[in-house]
Amino acid sequence: MAQKITPRNEDFSQWYQDLVLQARLADYSPVKGCMVIRPQGYGIWEQIQKDLDRRIKQAGAQNAYFPLLIPESFLKKEAEHVEGFAPECAMVTHAGGKELEEKLVIRPTSETIINSMFSKWIQSYRDLPMRVNQWANVVRWEMRTRLFLRTTEFLWQEGHTCHATSQQAEEEAKKMLEVYRVFAEEVLAMPVIVGQKTESEKFAGASKTYCVEAMMQDGKALQAGTSHDLGTHFAKAFDIKYLDREGKTHWVHQTSWGVSTRLIGGLIMTHSDDRGLVLPPYLAGRHVVIVPILQGSNDGELLIQAEKLQEDILRCWKGSYELKVHIDRDSSKQAGWKFHEYELLGVCLRIELGMRDLKQSQAVLVRRDEGVKHCVALERVGSEVAMRLGTMQRDLFEKVRLWRQERMHEVEDYGDFKTKLEKVGGFFIAPWCQKSSCEACVKEETKATIRCLPWGEDLQPQRDQRACLFCRDASSSVRAIFAKNY
Amino acid sequence: MAQKITPRNEDFSQWYQDLVLQARLADYSPVKGCMVIRPQGYGIWEQIQKDLDRRIKQAGAQNAYFPLLIPESFLKKEAEHVEGFAPECAMVTHAGGKELEEKLVIRPTSETIINSMFSKWIQSYRDLPMRVNQWANVVRWEMRTRLFLRTTEFLWQEGHTCHATSQQAEEEAKKMLEVYRVFAEEVLAMPVIVGQKTESEKFAGASKTYCVEAMMQDGKALQAGTSHDLGTHFAKAFDIKYLDREGKTHWVHQTSWGVSTRLIGGLIMTHSDDRGLVLPPYLAGRHVVIVPILQGSNDGELLIQAEKLQEDILRCWKGSYELKVHIDRDSSKQAGWKFHEYELLGVCLRIELGMRDLKQSQAVLVRRDEGVKHCVALERVGSEVAMRLGTMQRDLFEKVRLWRQERMHEVEDYGDFKTKLEKVGGFFIAPWCQKSSCEACVKEETKATIRCLPWGEDLQPQRDQRACLFCRDASSSVRAIFAKNY
Repeated sequence: MAQKITPRNEDFSQWYQDLVLQARLADYSPVKGCMVIRPQGYGIWEQIQKDLDRRIKQAGAQNAYFPLLIPESFLKKEAEHVEGFAPECAMVTHAGGKELEEKLVIRPTSETIINSMFSKWIQSYRDLPMRVNQWANVVRWEMRTRLFLRTTEFLWQEGHTCHATSQQAEEEAKKMLEVYRVFAEEVLAMPVIVGQKTESEKFAGASKTYCVEAMMQDGKALQAGTSHDLGTHFAKAFDIKYLDREGKTHWVHQTSWGVSTRLIGGLIMTHSDDRGLVLPPYLAGRHVVIVPILQGSNDGELLIQAEKLQEDILRCWKGSYELKVHIDRDSSKQAGWKFHEYELLGVCLRIELGMRDLKQSQAVLVRRDEGVKHCVALERVGSEVAMRLGTMQRDLFEKVRLWRQERMHEVEDYGDFKTKLEKVGGFFIAPWCQKSSCEACVKEETKATIRCLPWGEDLQPQRDQRACLFCRDASSSVRAIFAKNY
Repeated sequence: MAQKITPRNEDFSQWYQDLVLQARLADYSPVKGCMVIRPQGYGIWEQIQKDLDRRIKQAGAQNAYFPLLIPESFLKKEAEHVEGFAPECAMVTHAGGKELEEKLVIRPTSETIINSMFSKWIQSYRDLPMRVNQWANVVRWEMRTRLFLRTTEFLWQEGHTCHATSQQAEEEAKKMLEVYRVFAEEVLAMPVIVGQKTESEKFAGASKTYCVEAMMQDGKALQAGTSHDLGTHFAKAFDIKYLDREGKTHWVHQTSWGVSTRLIGGLIMTHSDDRGLVLPPYLAGRHVVIVPILQGSNDGELLIQAEKLQEDILRCWKGSYELKVHIDRDSSKQAGWKFHEYELLGVCLRIELGMRDLKQSQAVLVRRDEGVKHCVALERVGSEVAMRLGTMQRDLFEKVRLWRQERMHEVEDYGDFKTKLEKVGGFFIAPWCQKSSCEACVKEETKATIRCLPWGEDLQPQRDQRACLFCRDASSSVRAIFAKNY
């Protein structure tokens, strides 16, 4: 714990790694590219699951579980899908001491196995809409991995739905994207931009992919969730048909949507600082720590007051989540060491209580993200804590939103774009001619990709016929967001 | 839904399969030996997880997540462990389009990968005890599979702990078995026998395995949970040592413990009947269904009264779980069809409400497990429901406990044992000389195995020197429970 975290402005990537390891969120495993999610990190995932699971169920989906292993032939049934995923697959060739007749793929995503079941379960319009969700592990063989952000195995939820019409599927895909947007902004305090992926960035097998994109503190983009309108691609590949009221047969129209443990990486890079983890109160495992400044004499008095404060805080709390208030009774460590430790671990509020404070009937409150000491009268600590936690959740969101606003650049000139991309980074809103070749050239030359064609309120795609950032063709340009990304 | 469930006394195994498929709890998947857990079944698993997770956390463990894939060499580090699990392993040999340098095993259990991390995380006595738990999928290549009971992939929780002394590990293993016992009896309403496994039945790599064993309606045993005292076997294999207060180095002493989705199979075979699923109220996804007998005229009046009942029921409810009350508004199906459907699906209480009832200011209540109609005055429905759900949970347990008691036989004569085993089945308490050869012979001749050496209150192992059931040697006999098992 005495290690130093590399400052962000020195080496952002090293800062991230130092923080994840030192705050004991995750660890490297002996298996290449696979991580261990330690209790401190898994607790965040449990909070994410709990909240998002409720939202997914409210949106009409039920949880289920499908096999980890998929016959290789299934993956090949949808042409684009296999092309996208085959290179990343882990293959089981032997089991039970024998070579398998057909190789099995560890699911990189479950469209194929789930759709093979849908074809059995769906016969009539009465079976529609059908919505299932699963919380599961998936494996994609990645060459360059990074804790939480890109790992060979990761945890996620994947929703899969079937609908009678193309319009219903399209609405469903957009509805679930909205669920992700609200979740990201309200729970993760992470402002996101909502939009559509380009052809070259969309999910392998989808008609359209929608996404929420967040900006990290280094100005790079992180895809925080995706929702796909699958059209009838998989319905045709897996023969999923229904009879309508008139007895006519139709293909079903489908969607799928998911978010993963990479959200935890995004959360870290959105809020944390050089001292360690900063967590929005909704997601924190510990909200308040009371640190009595123990010095041998008067310790009993301090501990009694600490317990009284704990009771007051819990009594005053009316929030929607269960408040966790911890008293640090350890007398073997210095207060200063403890302060650093709780800052590293991302406890939202610290309450310092020394004998001098006690004589003045006050305690010192420090909000993790501000680091400023506030003296608060003892009888007001309970209500102050409730107030400050509410404010902290909103402030974190607002701070990031403003910060992001300053790093959103409208650009039209390619040279200007390249300069700013290197100098200040961030998101670049620019006209694009809709040709994949231009998109590829920009990526090749600058490493920036089109994150999405945005449809947020002040970012409506406008067909204003401005010249493409790269080729200057203005005949069918749309507004696109270019950025480097994770 | 119009299919018939095979009666239990005709073919128990077929009854089980019919029920699981028709109640849509699970389905066969296209992957050999792997099942799909459908929403009706997964909902039960979610209830199990929610309740047991709370108990596990109260017992001091925190959740974490470890890799799915384990290097083959890790599995080989503990001799007994590899011998036990290697024949059941699924092997990943290729990934990312290349052959792997070292084969990876899909975890059949996670002792090896978790212990490789413990050796990194544990240095001093201050790091002990360490307790982690993970909810995960595991794969064991089974030849003969059965929905929920024995599947190639299954879901489970596995806890892993490290302690300073052998005594602490032993206490921990027993403590967690007690958590499972209370959970099985209070939540699953499934009485269990607590005891120790024999050498030949214990976990591959454990010093001792403790278990809870339940009796199914066909008299066969189902192992409902296990807890292992691992001694220092894995500590030595993975070099997990700690420094004590005096600076001396010691191996840690360990435990592991788990329950799996097979509990759902056990739950079905414990309570369900020829009409379908019977669930203890604690685990039900829907507790009450109100079925207004819709006939075109007066439907509005019936539905208004149904809603009033729903409100009353929810207002009267003071139970520890969230009550789910559903009103069936579907006018396209006959009431009789609906009654059968809700019986099949295991809804705990059905409330029938026809115009004749309404005129008499009453409703008809039917408890799923009893199937008896009770007329209840409308104003008393709310309190009756609360009362009857509480009673149902207790009654289910008591009914099974009595039923089991009748099928627990004290035997001393081998011929007597064989006759009764075939004729009435159940659990047989008999003296055993502690020789594996006798255990093996009994298994070979009768298919009955030693389920455990019981240490329940009235089943204390007594060294009363009676002659072994098989070999008649009386020199070191103990009491063992023999039974056929799943």
